[in-house]
Amino acid sequence: MEAEDPSERRFVITFGCPDRVGIVARIASFLAELGGWIVEAAYHTDPDTGWFFTRQEVRADSLPYDVEELRSLFSPVAASLGAGSDADGGVEGSQWRIADTGDRRRMVLLVSKEGHCLYDLLGRVAGGELNVDVPAVIGNHESLGGITEAFGIDFHHVPFPKDADGKAAAFERVRAIVDEHDPDAIVLARFMQILPPELCQAWAGRAVNIHHSFLPSFVGARPYHQAHSRGVKLIGATCHYVTAELDAGPIIEQDVIRVDHSDTVADMVRRGRDIEKVVLARGLRWHLEHRVLVHAGRTVVF
Amino acid sequence: MEAEDPSERRFVITFGCPDRVGIVARIASFLAELGGWIVEAAYHTDPDTGWFFTRQEVRADSLPYDVEELRSLFSPVAASLGAGSDADGGVEGSQWRIADTGDRRRMVLLVSKEGHCLYDLLGRVAGGELNVDVPAVIGNHESLGGITEAFGIDFHHVPFPKDADGKAAAFERVRAIVDEHDPDAIVLARFMQILPPELCQAWAGRAVNIHHSFLPSFVGARPYHQAHSRGVKLIGATCHYVTAELDAGPIIEQDVIRVDHSDTVADMVRRGRDIEKVVLARGLRWHLEHRVLVHAGRTVVF
Amino acid sequence: MEAEDPSERRFVITFGCPDRVGIVARIASFLAELGGWIVEAAYHTDPDTGWFFTRQEVRADSLPYDVEELRSLFSPVAASLGAGSDADGGVEGSQWRIADTGDRRRMVLLVSKEGHCLYDLLGRVAGGELNVDVPAVIGNHESLGGITEAFGIDFHHVPFPKDADGKAAAFERVRAIVDEHDPDAIVLARFMQILPPELCQAWAGRAVNIHHSFLPSFVGARPYHQAHSRGVKLIGATCHYVTAELDAGPIIEQDVIRVDHSDTVADMVRRGRDIEKVVLARGLRWHLEHRVLVHAGRTVVF
Amino acid sequence: MEAEDPSERRFVITFGCPDRVGIVARIASFLAELGGWIVEAAYHTDPDTGWFFTRQEVRADSLPYDVEELRSLFSPVAASLGAGSDADGGVEGSQWRIADTGDRRRMVLLVSKEGHCLYDLLGRVAGGELNVDVPAVIGNHESLGGITEAFGIDFHHVPFPKDADGKAAAFERVRAIVDEHDPDAIVLARFMQILPPELCQAWAGRAVNIHHSFLPSFVGARPYHQAHSRGVKLIGATCHYVTAELDAGPIIEQDVIRVDHSDTVADMVRRGRDIEKVVLARGLRWHLEHRVLVHAGRTVVF
Repeated sequence: MEAEDPSERRFVITFGCPDRVGIVARIASFLAELGGWIVEAAYHTDPDTGWFFTRQEVRADSLPYDVEELRSLFSPVAASLGAGSDADGGVEGSQWRIADTGDRRRMVLLVSKEGHCLYDLLGRVAGGELNVDVPAVIGNHESLGGITEAFGIDFHHVPFPKDADGKAAAFERVRAIVDEHDPDAIVLARFMQILPPELCQAWAGRAVNIHHSFLPSFVGARPYHQAHSRGVKLIGATCHYVTAELDAGPIIEQDVIRVDHSDTVADMVRRGRDIEKVVLARGLRWHLEHRVLVHAGRTVVF
Repeated sequence: MEAEDPSERRFVITFGCPDRVGIVARIASFLAELGGWIVEAAYHTDPDTGWFFTRQEVRADSLPYDVEELRSLFSPVAASLGAGSDADGGVEGSQWRIADTGDRRRMVLLVSKEGHCLYDLLGRVAGGELNVDVPAVIGNHESLGGITEAFGIDFHHVPFPKDADGKAAAFERVRAIVDEHDPDAIVLARFMQILPPELCQAWAGRAVNIHHSFLPSFVGARPYHQAHSRGVKLIGATCHYVTAELDAGPIIEQDVIRVDHSDTVADMVRRGRDIEKVVLARGLRWHLEHRVLVHAGRTVVF
Repeated sequence: MEAEDPSERRFVITFGCPDRVGIVARIASFLAELGGWIVEAAYHTDPDTGWFFTRQEVRADSLPYDVEELRSLFSPVAASLGAGSDADGGVEGSQWRIADTGDRRRMVLLVSKEGHCLYDLLGRVAGGELNVDVPAVIGNHESLGGITEAFGIDFHHVPFPKDADGKAAAFERVRAIVDEHDPDAIVLARFMQILPPELCQAWAGRAVNIHHSFLPSFVGARPYHQAHSRGVKLIGATCHYVTAELDAGPIIEQDVIRVDHSDTVADMVRRGRDIEKVVLARGLRWHLEHRVLVHAGRTVVF
Repeated sequence: MEAEDPSERRFVITFGCPDRVGIVARIASFLAELGGWIVEAAYHTDPDTGWFFTRQEVRADSLPYDVEELRSLFSPVAASLGAGSDADGGVEGSQWRIADTGDRRRMVLLVSKEGHCLYDLLGRVAGGELNVDVPAVIGNHESLGGITEAFGIDFHHVPFPKDADGKAAAFERVRAIVDEHDPDAIVLARFMQILPPELCQAWAGRAVNIHHSFLPSFVGARPYHQAHSRGVKLIGATCHYVTAELDAGPIIEQDVIRVDHSDTVADMVRRGRDIEKVVLARGLRWHLEHRVLVHAGRTVVF
């Protein structure tokens, strides 16, 4: 929706490199000389790592270039500042990207039986709030197929057997379906299976999970049971990138909700859903808008 | 302040026993027959443990008894419902108490160098918000003595040597000063020493600590450093009863505040103070108002 | 869902009367004598109005009566305490009710073009979180018909002309559709029409609205524009009962979300939806669970 | 405290002008050419007004100039971008400033009887959290003199008679005491007198008030009574610049806390203090750090 008005089309530059004097001037001058109209700009220097980060949104109609041309022009600037491009296999955080918001983004959702995150995301897509295509939803149960198809989206049922071989085969099918669409985001929307390391690797920086606790508290299974047992007064949810270590990936967004002694585990499960939904939606939106940079296991969210 | 108007004086009954039919009726009828005017009543049944809890505030001027007489009258009612009194050494949660808000409560504060919780609590006492006497503040550094004395409160400087013997002797001095006042609350207001098991035992149910993280995340030392390193998006504070296991006692209150990538550890330390202060003050207030019941390692806060 | 396990069926007593000694004892003894097992009980006395309120949940299987019989038995108790029943046309707040959670509740939704509250509520119903039937959704635009029907629910398109006569006729059609189902809740889920006084009257205590501001700030049209213009740092939503005075009915629930100078009106509209959805869902749930008592223009939410 | 380490000394540039291509490049190049090391930079463009804002922190030890020299050098840059300096009497928002954090800031506090904001601010100053001198506290009652002097700060008791002439004379005394110190902030820390228009004018952009409601709800007197009467579910506080129109100045910060039906007005007054204190402290900190820019009656808080 947002990208339909041509004046709303943006080039989004994200950039990280070791901090030094003159980076802002170098990038800003590069854009000013081309006539680029910056509509949003954010900067951050991490004093611990000595790393500099920026994200800039430029009106596409203020530049006489397409995104490929802009990348070519920017490449020597980035190189002179010590930032490698994605294509160079630059190390995490020492990279740059230029995205064109006119390019449709795609996401694939992985679900199980709990439908609240799925409903919520599909509602946001249908209402135009999340400007992204959803070419496929994959479920390890059939139960969410009906509502998915009611939104006009293909649903793939991939059952997950308990045995290792069956599970590996199931993940191969999931991978095939996902990779066919080359999505910008693979969303584990309360998908109750742990991704194998090779998928964590293959989808690094694109696989987004919602965990139903305030990490690092209550890693792993049944976090609401753990929370109830400990007697905490707030429960939470965490949206994070998936990495090979369980529930330990870079955190994109978190939020909490107050509980008290009268809340049973079932109450926590029910009430926690409202936090899970909104935390996932916020984190996912920022990911899709290229607002999230990862460095040293933490995120910068511009 | 609150207790100065005689019509504001209350008897506060707290009570826990195994759940069964008729408990509410039994207690309410007991009070009604005496003419007791209930101004606040709360009930809770824990479906996991099958335990029943209640707290009732009765206008003292509606009953022709003092608190000792009321305790004598209530004792057989409690016994018939299976609740032992404190004096019986009843097990945790299976106890009852009747407090008289006309009795002045006392608290002793244990501090180190960080003064924000001390300032905050003394300000609340001075302003009449916390209706409690503070006969002593004990510091393992001298630095907070001046402000304590400016509020007209005795300050005891008890240095803590690094060696085990010296530390044990220091704790003996602390214990002597505290026990002399037989306080309703011993508050570890950012006291940076770990209480030895015998003090945890002696002060069970009265020693209240503020920990500067959202427990169970970041137990132990330097929780803001831990939080920064993990890249969480909210930091918190936890007010809990002190038990022998570090930072694992029953949680009375917690709260959080949002942080982002631009917050350094120093920023977290500074911003976290605002949460520490308010979480400690809330938890302490509830403790002093007999609103907190402990059962199975968790609290019921009425 | 909740009511499907027979042991989960409850009788819910709500009750209000002038405060005096012995009310709790009278009601609790009445239930205890019948063998009623209270699973949840809450009390409140309003010191300003001198009014007493209670809500009690009793296990239905602990009593040898159906709800009609229980009402008959309770009626003299209530009368002796000065509380009229709904059937007596008792004044607001001086009433009692006994509900049977085994009776299916029904709600009808009124919508316009904005679908986020509709999606959210239908998702909660489909997922079993809101235990209520939705026999009809009425829209003054067609656009939300498709998704409504995808959830298997009848959609009624009732266009609203601009002229007074046409609008009155449209409201007559809405009223006919609503009243046919005699719903427990009529939910204005971002319905952009102002109910005429006679419908406010006819649906008093059942019509629940979500207003997209933190009332009493920004009554009426375009509250996000008003909020942006004033430069507030938090925006909110309010769930309230509909009364004849616009946006002035008793408030059931409110919440807020932080905004800053970078949020445009469009950002506020988008971000505010997440608060509108959850505030409406919470308020509606409490209404359907008979947790909301109204007295003197304010609500008691047990 | 912060400014004591020379490497921590900063020049803080704040700047606003009509938006156009190249502003960021112009300012960044200016700094880069001098060798200025930017440690924090923030930008904002308001699409409604077409105005551009920035705030930049530069390490003082990266530049071979003092603040006066830097101002002289920057002046033609600012003029070329259409921004007037304060000295030019530039219109609100179309101004620039360069502050030196090595210059001690000063604030004067105006109080009445309620001490919680005073205690809180003095505690923050004493603890080194707020890096500012407090040369004077002025009270229209004597009651807060003792604690003020315990912190080593001069207290001036200026009684306010009820009659207009007496009140005008009292304000003249207040003005004389304040102006003698030429403070960076005049803080109305629950000062219960309304500033006359000429003082609002004289102290424009420096007089900071804390109002005990979530503005624009509950302007004027007794906001907690108003909130209780309306039955809101959250109460709040607002820190804003003082202007001639009561409680209508640009909002710097707001926050809220949840209340329910059991909270009396006295409870709201007590609980609201925790929000008032923290909202005032946050807003005041941002003001003193030159983070707040005002334009079109709203604030940009960097």
